[in-house]
Amino acid sequence: MGVILFNAVILGLETSDEVMAEVGSLILLLDKVCLGIFVIEIAIKLYGRGMDFFKRGWSIFDFVIVAISLIPATQGLSVLRALRILRLLRVVSVAPSLRRVVEGLVNALPGMGSVFLLMGVIFYIASVMATKLFGADFPQWFGTLGRSGYSLFQIMTLESWSMGIVRPVMEVYPYAWMFFVPFIMVTTFAVVNLLVGLIVNSMQDAHHEESNEQTNTYRDEVMSRLTDLENLIKAQNTPPKR
Amino acid sequence: MGVILFNAVILGLETSDEVMAEVGSLILLLDKVCLGIFVIEIAIKLYGRGMDFFKRGWSIFDFVIVAISLIPATQGLSVLRALRILRLLRVVSVAPSLRRVVEGLVNALPGMGSVFLLMGVIFYIASVMATKLFGADFPQWFGTLGRSGYSLFQIMTLESWSMGIVRPVMEVYPYAWMFFVPFIMVTTFAVVNLLVGLIVNSMQDAHHEESNEQTNTYRDEVMSRLTDLENLIKAQNTPPKR
Amino acid sequence: MGVILFNAVILGLETSDEVMAEVGSLILLLDKVCLGIFVIEIAIKLYGRGMDFFKRGWSIFDFVIVAISLIPATQGLSVLRALRILRLLRVVSVAPSLRRVVEGLVNALPGMGSVFLLMGVIFYIASVMATKLFGADFPQWFGTLGRSGYSLFQIMTLESWSMGIVRPVMEVYPYAWMFFVPFIMVTTFAVVNLLVGLIVNSMQDAHHEESNEQTNTYRDEVMSRLTDLENLIKAQNTPPKR
Amino acid sequence: MGVILFNAVILGLETSDEVMAEVGSLILLLDKVCLGIFVIEIAIKLYGRGMDFFKRGWSIFDFVIVAISLIPATQGLSVLRALRILRLLRVVSVAPSLRRVVEGLVNALPGMGSVFLLMGVIFYIASVMATKLFGADFPQWFGTLGRSGYSLFQIMTLESWSMGIVRPVMEVYPYAWMFFVPFIMVTTFAVVNLLVGLIVNSMQDAHHEESNEQTNTYRDEVMSRLTDLENLIKAQNTPPKR
Repeated sequence: MGVILFNAVILGLETSDEVMAEVGSLILLLDKVCLGIFVIEIAIKLYGRGMDFFKRGWSIFDFVIVAISLIPATQGLSVLRALRILRLLRVVSVAPSLRRVVEGLVNALPGMGSVFLLMGVIFYIASVMATKLFGADFPQWFGTLGRSGYSLFQIMTLESWSMGIVRPVMEVYPYAWMFFVPFIMVTTFAVVNLLVGLIVNSMQDAHHEESNEQTNTYRDEVMSRLTDLENLIKAQNTPPKR
Repeated sequence: MGVILFNAVILGLETSDEVMAEVGSLILLLDKVCLGIFVIEIAIKLYGRGMDFFKRGWSIFDFVIVAISLIPATQGLSVLRALRILRLLRVVSVAPSLRRVVEGLVNALPGMGSVFLLMGVIFYIASVMATKLFGADFPQWFGTLGRSGYSLFQIMTLESWSMGIVRPVMEVYPYAWMFFVPFIMVTTFAVVNLLVGLIVNSMQDAHHEESNEQTNTYRDEVMSRLTDLENLIKAQNTPPKR
Repeated sequence: MGVILFNAVILGLETSDEVMAEVGSLILLLDKVCLGIFVIEIAIKLYGRGMDFFKRGWSIFDFVIVAISLIPATQGLSVLRALRILRLLRVVSVAPSLRRVVEGLVNALPGMGSVFLLMGVIFYIASVMATKLFGADFPQWFGTLGRSGYSLFQIMTLESWSMGIVRPVMEVYPYAWMFFVPFIMVTTFAVVNLLVGLIVNSMQDAHHEESNEQTNTYRDEVMSRLTDLENLIKAQNTPPKR
Repeated sequence: MGVILFNAVILGLETSDEVMAEVGSLILLLDKVCLGIFVIEIAIKLYGRGMDFFKRGWSIFDFVIVAISLIPATQGLSVLRALRILRLLRVVSVAPSLRRVVEGLVNALPGMGSVFLLMGVIFYIASVMATKLFGADFPQWFGTLGRSGYSLFQIMTLESWSMGIVRPVMEVYPYAWMFFVPFIMVTTFAVVNLLVGLIVNSMQDAHHEESNEQTNTYRDEVMSRLTDLENLIKAQNTPPKR
């Protein structure tokens, strides 16, 4: 873990021109050393556990992150060089508390699958409509399906939707608001429902885990107590008959 | 369902100029084939169920969507052509999981009716006031009731409300903030209450459905157990009297 | 109620220049008729109930709204003329469902009093600091306490906070972000806590009202059942001793 | 407390040029008197309680705030002069209701520690990536790690993210949205989870405190009642055996 954090600092320093001009070679060397340690660590684990290694999600996560760093970055692909900082994500797979948060976030996703799918359908429909309606006059915003999708995402986040996009569009198509205002309402409402769903789910999980345990213990005790009473009374009921 | 998704892709391709230039006639043909399949499907269902067909909300939904596509789009009404992509919405009426999400959203609406009505009243009042107060000097934003309503909706979404609208207005009417800041607070507060209402409602529904079932079973059992005990004791009580 | 809605439409029509040019005198007349009906209604209620009239909040609300309309609007005070549309607010005091929503909103306020007070303290401190720090160089945003307060409110709503205000300020004071970023975090966090408090409160109210009633009935029955059992056993216990 | 509020007004008046021109010396004098009262108050408490004084968080808070004001502000450091208004924060440590709110906010922080840490990791990674990818062409936004961090914070608050930053960047790097859109989604999702966690936590605290107390009383009573019954039956059971 120390190595990960140290490596993160090294990669951070790489962004500074002054530092690179002075001790650039040292930093690149240290970066390679860190990478070497990661590769060896993964190699040992891989050797030790064999194919079991790939059964755990976090192991695959570590493997992919280190593998990305090994792709030769000398090809001038600055994107690949930038991805090397993703190594810091390994800190998540090492620190248990961060791991739990990420697992919590990931576990929340499947329950929201249907809403995401619906959002996708709404976005696709709205993108096709926006492209057909406004694409000819506003090619930079709605020229292609992709651009429409991006512009609609911007509108959904409410960023400059009116002053930046809808008012200019309305100068050409005065009824454009009949498309955009409902779009904003529907997507905002869907997002709000995602949020509500998330809250209700976490609430119920929390409720179950804790409160019910105590309640169940109590209920079982009441039941066994009642059974005892019944047995006692029955036992008392029979002897006098003899 | 496959046909719906295939049709959606076809309609998406229609937005691309290059694709249309090359295989445009093929795509238009395929689109017509898909539409034909939908019409036949609806016709069969309509014939099979008769008037019952119109009793289910989703059937009417399907019928309207297909009917929109049948309106001749050759009149140069690009709006109607754009509406054809709404056919993809049929995927919602076909996929049960999406259907449930939409039904959830729609069911949440009536409970929020009063708040929506109140929002409508607030918007109408604010629009009339804004038109009377600022309409003369800022006709592009507050010239008519409709423009005021649109500008106030923009302000409610907090988009460029200050830099874009209120600061320019305040240069003419220095006390304009006394109108806009309370408006933002009141509408935001109303929206927040909508959200709170939604959360509390979903929570209670979830609570009811599940937790109470178990609780009721337990309570009924406790009651019958207590009745048994009482009967036992009474039964035991009577014989000695004889 | 019909009169209120009719009056609202009349006041809405007053904003339209064309309508006023054609039938302006008719509309002004109808407006006066509506106002007359309201005044008579209030007068009758006032006569009927005497001083009790002023004990109900909603009566005072109605009285103030109608009183505002009676202030002579011919003095060229367009503000007072604009306030006449507030008469539509009477619809809230007449419709029970809207009334309940407003009462719900107003009842939620006292519980948030402390947080509001804290927000006020934070705003006052931040305004004084912003005025002292940036007032000299940015008089249009932070020149006086009032302007600082307005600018900080805008920043709290996240509207153009960075591009519009903080980036220009940072060109003069490079460390200005050390003031604004914490301010955004603290106020956002306080607003979020207001929201959380609202949700938890409504939830508990809803929980109490309903679930506990059922639970209490059940618990009382269990207790009386247990008492019955005890009495039965005691009754059975004594006779054999005789 | 009166002195604190009076001092706050004095410091507020200091921001007004006209007031300072007229009665500036009086205001500076009154400010010094207030500061003197605070110093004496702290000194008395410090003397009275000795080292125990520093064991309570709020005492340290008071001490630091007054100490800041004593740093000579004549060095032209307008920052230090501006910090003097922080004295108004003492009102929080004096008013119990505000104190409780702040304690509530502070108590909520540790539970969110992991999510904050995760946000920090995400921000650091994204800053390094943004600096490497876009730093060369957009030095004013992504030139250094610090600038990238600030720009990403702005993007996270959704302020002008698209029109102001991402669209210009996309003119140079057309695939920049592949970095920014996921960044927005991930950070928004993390913030939403913070909010959900806060709500669930406060809810459970509120649930525990109140509902369980009543429930526990009831459960204890049921248990003691059942024990009584058992004893009664046993007592009744033994005599006949003699």
